[in-house]
Formats: sequence, C-alpha cells, structure tokens
Amino acid sequence: MSKAPHSQTAEDPFSLEDKQDQAANWFYSLQAMICTAFEAIEDDLSAGPKAGLLAGRFEKTPWEREQSGQPNASGSVLHGGGTMAVMRGRVFEKVGVNVSRVHGVFSPEYAKNIPGAEESGGHFWASGISLVAHMQSPLVPAVHMNTRMIMTSKSWFGGGADLTPMFEDAQDTQAFHQAFKDCCDQHDPAYYPEFKAWCDRYFFLPHRNEPRGIGGIFYDYLDRKSWAEDFTFTKDVGRTFLEIYPQLVRRSMNREWTDEEREHQLIRRGRYVEFNLLYDRGTQFGLKTGGNTEAILMSMPPEVKWP
Amino acid sequence: MSKAPHSQTAEDPFSLEDKQDQAANWFYSLQAMICTAFEAIEDDLSAGPKAGLLAGRFEKTPWEREQSGQPNASGSVLHGGGTMAVMRGRVFEKVGVNVSRVHGVFSPEYAKNIPGAEESGGHFWASGISLVAHMQSPLVPAVHMNTRMIMTSKSWFGGGADLTPMFEDAQDTQAFHQAFKDCCDQHDPAYYPEFKAWCDRYFFLPHRNEPRGIGGIFYDYLDRKSWAEDFTFTKDVGRTFLEIYPQLVRRSMNREWTDEEREHQLIRRGRYVEFNLLYDRGTQFGLKTGGNTEAILMSMPPEVKWP
Repeated sequence: MSKAPHSQTAEDPFSLEDKQDQAANWFYSLQAMICTAFEAIEDDLSAGPKAGLLAGRFEKTPWEREQSGQPNASGSVLHGGGTMAVMRGRVFEKVGVNVSRVHGVFSPEYAKNIPGAEESGGHFWASGISLVAHMQSPLVPAVHMNTRMIMTSKSWFGGGADLTPMFEDAQDTQAFHQAFKDCCDQHDPAYYPEFKAWCDRYFFLPHRNEPRGIGGIFYDYLDRKSWAEDFTFTKDVGRTFLEIYPQLVRRSMNREWTDEEREHQLIRRGRYVEFNLLYDRGTQFGLKTGGNTEAILMSMPPEVKWP
Repeated sequence: MSKAPHSQTAEDPFSLEDKQDQAANWFYSLQAMICTAFEAIEDDLSAGPKAGLLAGRFEKTPWEREQSGQPNASGSVLHGGGTMAVMRGRVFEKVGVNVSRVHGVFSPEYAKNIPGAEESGGHFWASGISLVAHMQSPLVPAVHMNTRMIMTSKSWFGGGADLTPMFEDAQDTQAFHQAFKDCCDQHDPAYYPEFKAWCDRYFFLPHRNEPRGIGGIFYDYLDRKSWAEDFTFTKDVGRTFLEIYPQLVRRSMNREWTDEEREHQLIRRGRYVEFNLLYDRGTQFGLKTGGNTEAILMSMPPEVKWP
C-alpha cells in the first residue's frame, strides 16, 4: 500500500507544526555549531600573512518582516524572519551563515514554478540555512552549503554543498567528494551518483563554458522516503559539511601566499558573482519573494576583480 | 496614406543592405571618435593621485564567430563579429567600447520575446555600440552609453546613456540631463519626457529599492518616423554623449580623493554589477544569443567590494 510521501501516517507521526519546528530548530542549531567551529579556526591560525590580525568573531543580526500582509514589490507576501551571522576574520575574509523561517503567499506568477504552490493557493512555508565562505587565503577553497525544507501543498527538502578552490588541489577535492559520498551512501546508494551529477549540472556557467568549482552534491524536491528519513539525510548533509570543511581549511590556512595567487583569487571570485546573480535559484527565490536583500547578497565576495 | 515605418518607399529609398551598412559604419565611426576623445583625456590629466602614471591607450581586439551554422548552447545561431576596444588608464580605470555586427537565428524560445522575430522565422540582424566606463577617481561619474539597430521582420533603433556618480554632483547631473534634453528636443518634443522616464524605470534595482544612478535617457523599439530620421536621432544620441561626457570627466579628474571616497566607490560598483547581471536586457540578450562573453562582461567594474 503506497502512501503520499511526507503525509502523516502511523510511520510518520509528526504533525505539520512539529515538522516545521524540528526543521527550523535544526537549522538554527547547525548555524550555532558552524559558528563555533569557524571561530575556533580563527583562534587557531598560527602563520601566514594574516596571522598578526585579531581572530574574527561572528556578528549575529536577527531580522523580521513586518506582519503587514501587503504584497511586496514582487507581488508575494512574506512573514517571518531569520538570523544573519557574518564574520569578517583573518581566515574567513567574509563568511555568512544565514537561517530563516518564513511563510506567506507567492505571487501567482511565481507560484507556477514551485511544486504544489498553485494547489496551495500560493501559500508556502520555508526554513533553511545558507552558508557562503570567502577566504583570505587563495590556497583555501571557498565553499557553499545550503539545506532547506519547503512546504506548499507538498513538502520537500533540498540543499547540498560544493567547493570552489582557487587552485585545484587533488587532496582537498578527493576528501570533499569522499565525505559526501559516505554521507549519501549511508542513506541510499542511489543518492550520491544522482546528487553529484546534479551538482555538476547546476554549478555550471554556460556563458563561460566552465564549472563554478569542483562540485559536491546538490538535491532538491527530496520527498522520497518518510519525512523523518528525508530530514535525517538533510541533517547528515549539514553534519558532513561541519566535519569536512574545517579539515580542509586547517590543512592550508597557515601557508604563505603570493600577490599573484591573491590576484588570481580575486578574478576567480568574479565567476562566483556571475553565477549567483545570473543563475542561482536560491538568489532568485530570495529576491523574487521579497526576502532580506542583505542576507541574500551576503554570498557576494568581499573583494572582486574583473581586470 | 500611412506607410509601414522603416519600409522602403519614395521617402525612404535605402535598401536593406544600405541601412545595415550605414548603421554599422556609424557605430564603428563613433567607436573611433570616442576612443580618440578618451585617449586625449588620458593625455591631459595633470594632477591627482594617478597623474604620475602613463596615459592609457585603447587595445582593440576584433572577434568573429565561426560560420558553422550550428546552434550555440542557448539554441541560437550567430554569425558576424565585432571589435572590443578596452583601455585601462590613469583616468579611465577600465573602459570598454564595443561594436558588433551580427546576424543569425534566434532559438524559438528567445524569438518569442523579440518583436517580429517569430514572423521572421527567428532571423535577425543587429549592430550596435556599447560603452561602459569605470573611472579611477570616485569624484568622476561612471557612465554607460549604448545605441543599436535591430532587424527581424521589423526594424528599430534603441539605446540611451545614463550616468552613475559615486557622489552626486548637482552641476554634473544638470549638465548631463540638459545635454540629452537638447538632443531629444531637436527631434521631437515628446521624446525627452518619455525617454527620461523610461531610463528612470529601467535603471532601477527593485531588490535595493534604489536607482542605479541619476538616469539619462533610454529608448527602444524606435520605429516612429522614417528610418533615416530614426537613424539621425540615434546618431545624435551618440554625438551628444561624445560631447558631454568628456566635459564632465575633465571637470573633476584632476581633483584629489580620499581612501574613504575610493572605498565608497568600490561598494557602489557592486550595485552596478548587481544591476547588469540580474536585470540588464543587453547583458541577457548577449549571453542568451551566444555573443562574445568577454565583450559583454567588459561592463564589469575592474575592482568591486561587497564588504
């Protein structure tokens, strides 16, 4: 007997509110754990061009949409809020770790592109964590991680993590891919090949005919097993990120770098900007639903060159 | 008795090829005149933080699409080519003046958005000049100018010019607006109010709820009078730019500036990037029809900060 995935059944006993609370609470917890881990990295820098600077600390800024019920410029209504956590440090030149929990009504035009949103009359609920780290050292890869839960008349998880080295390093690349392979394989042997390929397709710049970085995993509309199992997978993606990325940072952060390497990094960051503004669905989703512009564009690199 | 605008009649005796050649030749001439004027400005810098550097010179790079007839990644076929002219100087930190003359077949999806393109079976011809200048001095405004002729089963001109000061200066603003008002008024008293308002609407960042700069004029689908009259107006827009912008540059280029003013400039440039990649139709047109990515993204500022 088949059941509608993510529906409430004997095996899936959480109420709608339970699920929303559990998911949002997890994203907030993960934010706290990541901030702690990254601040420890700031403390532990011991060599390299920036070692003389003070260790960075996160600044957290809660934000909340007023409950006016009026459509914003994009025709959607958005309630709720989130917390931006930003650190400008000596290892992390600029890292944003944002969580949000919002609900509202999509504009009819936007609803057409979102599964189950026409059936819900445009109503949606969403919570997620989104992280982008741009590093001082051109020898330490930039990284992006995002996981989220979205509900319309349907409910699903999405997210992933991908690495953007400025100079590709075989050991970093192998370690990053292996970590997410192990994570996926614990849940379903089909996941890794599918989600890795999806990542490679997604983080690609057609106008440059080049990938954004070395990839990782990307998944969306995940509504395959019970809600609890899909949620556990999403939590494991976050935990995997929290384990592997600090290892990669620590491996290279104390190395010296040259002006030429820095220049190359600033130019490569331009590709990151191009991707996020031209193609990224999360950026588009946020800007088109009237999200917090400062939080959404926290992903922009602190300094960029198009020479 | 009405006539189809831009059709060949007794009053409008140019053949299709004549019109294409005249328009493209004008855009190439205008490029040459602008490059000469800007190099003279480079020579004439006499004070300020960059006066010790060598005067800049344009590098011109012709490009041509191979005549394979194969659709590019976006499903369009593009033939033809153009010339990129780029100068990295002591007044002009980075200025690109690009001309192109291309023809081909739009992908069916893209053709839907272009007047007359479904009727032409997707066939199009386009030529234009596009200029973006990012200045060393935060006290000299950045500028954009573009004019173009496009043919499908219809034919029209479009373009305009707009100014982006880093610190608004009432005298510059007034002079820029007045120059384009005078230009428009010579052709039709209806033009200036319409094209100024269009510019204000167009160069606006909804996600920031702020204009990109102080505006100017913007027009498109201009097919109102004879082809010759519409072409003359388009030439006058280019001539007006060539006259007014060098005046504004010369007025402020020799002034000193502070690190704080420079920092402000680098941050304001981020808005320019956001606009061009998120909203600009010219950028989208170029990237989606398989244009020359280097030429299209020549508009990106040389150095930018999102702190």
